[in-house]
Amino acid sequence: MSADAPKFDGPNSLVTAVVQDAATGNVLMLAHMNRAAWEETVASGYAVFFSRSRQRLWRKGETSGHVQKVREMYVDCDGDAVLLKVDQTGAACHEGFESCFFRRLDHGKWRVIAERLVDPATIYPKANEADA
Amino acid sequence: MSADAPKFDGPNSLVTAVVQDAATGNVLMLAHMNRAAWEETVASGYAVFFSRSRQRLWRKGETSGHVQKVREMYVDCDGDAVLLKVDQTGAACHEGFESCFFRRLDHGKWRVIAERLVDPATIYPKANEADA
Repeated sequence: MSADAPKFDGPNSLVTAVVQDAATGNVLMLAHMNRAAWEETVASGYAVFFSRSRQRLWRKGETSGHVQKVREMYVDCDGDAVLLKVDQTGAACHEGFESCFFRRLDHGKWRVIAERLVDPATIYPKANEADA
Repeated sequence: MSADAPKFDGPNSLVTAVVQDAATGNVLMLAHMNRAAWEETVASGYAVFFSRSRQRLWRKGETSGHVQKVREMYVDCDGDAVLLKVDQTGAACHEGFESCFFRRLDHGKWRVIAERLVDPATIYPKANEADA
């Protein structure tokens, strides 16, 4: 990988990953990647992150089936963020919405502006499952 | 602000901000906000971040004139990220590109896929200016 690649200073160094729907341009979610997550994403063609709460690789969709097939990968100017354009199966958000950004500020109040695609209770075995 | 607002645990607590062009859907950049940056953004209608390198508020465009007029603001499911849809004046990236994500992975190599809109030397008084 060239010097322009994401900057991983060590195995636990993280970059931020923005995930965008390749077809609609909707921003779906933010997550993090360590070097292993990045390399597995490149090799497999499916989004793999590093879960900070679980401190392990998080193969997006491993529980829910809501995988992200990666179409394009970008890195930002200073190498601490990447952008993935993906084909999203199901819902990106563990709350069952297409996107984690389902609340918009509307005259000083937060308003849910999307419909829930999936009932989280039907896909996650444990309550309060943080990763999807 | 409701309980659904971005989570700022203290004045120095940061959330990640994704900035997207309101018209094209292009992801322009990632930055961070503390509570003061968030509140000033809401109040002024222009993007204000917290610069981690300078440890102070960063009114986007304060040096370059490349301001971001905020059209819509979203918060994510767990409150640690926000999404701003903006009208970008000039170039979001301090390197003079519309977006900081101007390099795409192409068969294992990074390739610049955008044209530079602005010569950074013409807008920043100091070399290696990190913030734009």
